[in-house]
Amino acid sequence: MEACVRLAQELVRIPSVTGDEPAVQERVAQALADAGLEVDTFEADLGRLKMHPRFPGMEVDRQQARLVAGTLGPRGGRSLILNGHVDVVPPGNRTRWQASPWSGHIQAGRLFGRGACDMKAGVAVAISVAGALAKSGLPLSGRLTVQSVVGEEDGGLGTFAMIDRGYRADAAIVLEPTGLRLIPAQAGALSFRLRVTGLAAHASVRYQGVSALEKFQVIENRLRRLERELNQQPPSLFSRYPIPYALSIGKLRAGEWSATVPDQLECEGRVGVPLGVASSDVRGQFEAAVGEAARQDTWLHDHPPAVEWFGGQFDAAEVDPTLPVFRMLGEAHRQELGVDPELDGAPYGSDMRLFVHEGEMPAILYGPGDIRQAHSVDEWISVDEIARAARIVTVAAANYLTET
Amino acid sequence: MEACVRLAQELVRIPSVTGDEPAVQERVAQALADAGLEVDTFEADLGRLKMHPRFPGMEVDRQQARLVAGTLGPRGGRSLILNGHVDVVPPGNRTRWQASPWSGHIQAGRLFGRGACDMKAGVAVAISVAGALAKSGLPLSGRLTVQSVVGEEDGGLGTFAMIDRGYRADAAIVLEPTGLRLIPAQAGALSFRLRVTGLAAHASVRYQGVSALEKFQVIENRLRRLERELNQQPPSLFSRYPIPYALSIGKLRAGEWSATVPDQLECEGRVGVPLGVASSDVRGQFEAAVGEAARQDTWLHDHPPAVEWFGGQFDAAEVDPTLPVFRMLGEAHRQELGVDPELDGAPYGSDMRLFVHEGEMPAILYGPGDIRQAHSVDEWISVDEIARAARIVTVAAANYLTET
Repeated sequence: MEACVRLAQELVRIPSVTGDEPAVQERVAQALADAGLEVDTFEADLGRLKMHPRFPGMEVDRQQARLVAGTLGPRGGRSLILNGHVDVVPPGNRTRWQASPWSGHIQAGRLFGRGACDMKAGVAVAISVAGALAKSGLPLSGRLTVQSVVGEEDGGLGTFAMIDRGYRADAAIVLEPTGLRLIPAQAGALSFRLRVTGLAAHASVRYQGVSALEKFQVIENRLRRLERELNQQPPSLFSRYPIPYALSIGKLRAGEWSATVPDQLECEGRVGVPLGVASSDVRGQFEAAVGEAARQDTWLHDHPPAVEWFGGQFDAAEVDPTLPVFRMLGEAHRQELGVDPELDGAPYGSDMRLFVHEGEMPAILYGPGDIRQAHSVDEWISVDEIARAARIVTVAAANYLTET
Repeated sequence: MEACVRLAQELVRIPSVTGDEPAVQERVAQALADAGLEVDTFEADLGRLKMHPRFPGMEVDRQQARLVAGTLGPRGGRSLILNGHVDVVPPGNRTRWQASPWSGHIQAGRLFGRGACDMKAGVAVAISVAGALAKSGLPLSGRLTVQSVVGEEDGGLGTFAMIDRGYRADAAIVLEPTGLRLIPAQAGALSFRLRVTGLAAHASVRYQGVSALEKFQVIENRLRRLERELNQQPPSLFSRYPIPYALSIGKLRAGEWSATVPDQLECEGRVGVPLGVASSDVRGQFEAAVGEAARQDTWLHDHPPAVEWFGGQFDAAEVDPTLPVFRMLGEAHRQELGVDPELDGAPYGSDMRLFVHEGEMPAILYGPGDIRQAHSVDEWISVDEIARAARIVTVAAANYLTET
């Protein structure tokens, strides 16, 4: 088994749900040191960063955020960042998993576990690319930085902290699971919280109360329509996605007691941001849709739902895929696989937009794994694809950083 | 202010959400002792009672259940139980309350607070009736028992424990808030839990997952229809209720993460049991309705929702309102108010059915307070009505227990 796959497996076996990543970051730092990189482990200054007007948000209640970067090669020449996140979303209903979400077992060529695809394999690839360059003895004329970040799933504070610490490069490759497609454009994604108020009453006279759950459904119907409105004319980069800018309710809590009409409901979800549209515009459309639905309902008219934007606020972003480093990545891909990489858009928000908007560096998504596996039960990634990605990115990085 | 109202106020000021009633029971025991009754304070043997095939259920996770009974008068003659519960449902969203749910303040003739109406006022009435009889020096030929129970809101374990301890009488009056109507019939109420399974996916490709929340709505639509079916021909006793046998979802939890399609949903609710219909029949109809809806949905067909019956399982019950003690109660009512009490049915389950089915004693509901206030925000009860109820029940009990 390739070292890269073994490392991915090891990382999957260290649970690291967003907010609880120190253990896995310790392992990453060790791996970077073993690979021969200079390692910078630091804690993000959350208190200060949270005050930043463009802080990308966070959803979990966290006390710390440990970040790890490794560098290789001289300053002054070209520079490239390989970026990945080690935080993962919760496994959900564990009884639905065939094996433990942290099993990291390999079966029929697939590595299983929460984070296998999204995106500990990508982090393992980045580390092994750096290790290969270090071991190769190639005379690097530029500098490679591997960034292992946390808090991507709930907004991107890790990459934000990397930029804040001064990490810059000519370009960045974020090794998200793109199925080895080149993704120079990503939709945005905005986390929202919606609070609906009802009127409590004993369930036996439920018609004397107002169920916050029933009133939520009024709002939800209007939000379904908003999703259709947002997806009327998606650009061709997104043609393979039926709904590139999805609106989804992920979490909902209503009521406290089986025999009381629920007088409060809180739900959290995310809405996509179309390419070329400002996040603030989508927030405005969302609030207008909620307001419109509320005005047409007698109860909600007098008890308007509250909308809050929290956690991940991912702007849409787009870069030029013909920049030298991205072209070299495409060439390495063709060399390995015999065909040009497909160009694609990403329907999900990612740290790419922080590089573009906050760091003012071009960044592209390219990595192993099928996005459909991300956040899924029995998440898996193809072991061959991990190895393939490692070879391709190694060639691209070597070419880019040795060319003079 | 009447002592009875003052006692009700004091009881409201001692928070006693179901499962946490020892403090208020201590106060009740003191009040019964002060009134001159022989007091029996005991802890229910939960371990043993829970094994009983007809244990009425409980919903909260409780370690203890303290019960208090007070008795007055000789054994061997007539006997009457006055029963009330001191546990209350949670206050819900506190910000919607004008004052603290435990304020117990009186304003414009209304006593406010969680439990004011349901039913600490009723308990205060029972205690003050006993106190009045004790103080009157009337030669009682029979025995009055005041029962202050807990765990009524989540099933009725308190009254069940009283019956288990051997308390019996010729009849019982449960002082639930009936607005001084005589209620010889109550609908049943069954607590259910419903679990719906979806398929997790990243929100950006939500169409590749299955939202447990959306699938719940399929089931819910069918349950709305079940409610209409249950309410097709309600008896005339229930004519003032638009939906005597209500079905209501009180609590719902779905998903864990804003950007993941929720793969699990759990909700709790209650469904009414029509008069003359066995609880087991309603459970069967409910399960059939859920099953029918599931079979018509591709996903639910293969992932059928789970139905669980938990906590309160209240059978419907009915007694003859012309029994001597109930007739005397009606006469005392007419004497105080100049009109016969209205006869009514109760759409809610209560401890009445435990007296009838488990204790094999006739029991009727009669007490101060409007059921519409029960479980509501800013719950209140009319202070005059508390005093009126105390006078009426005192006269009825005195007549019944001194007649030879």
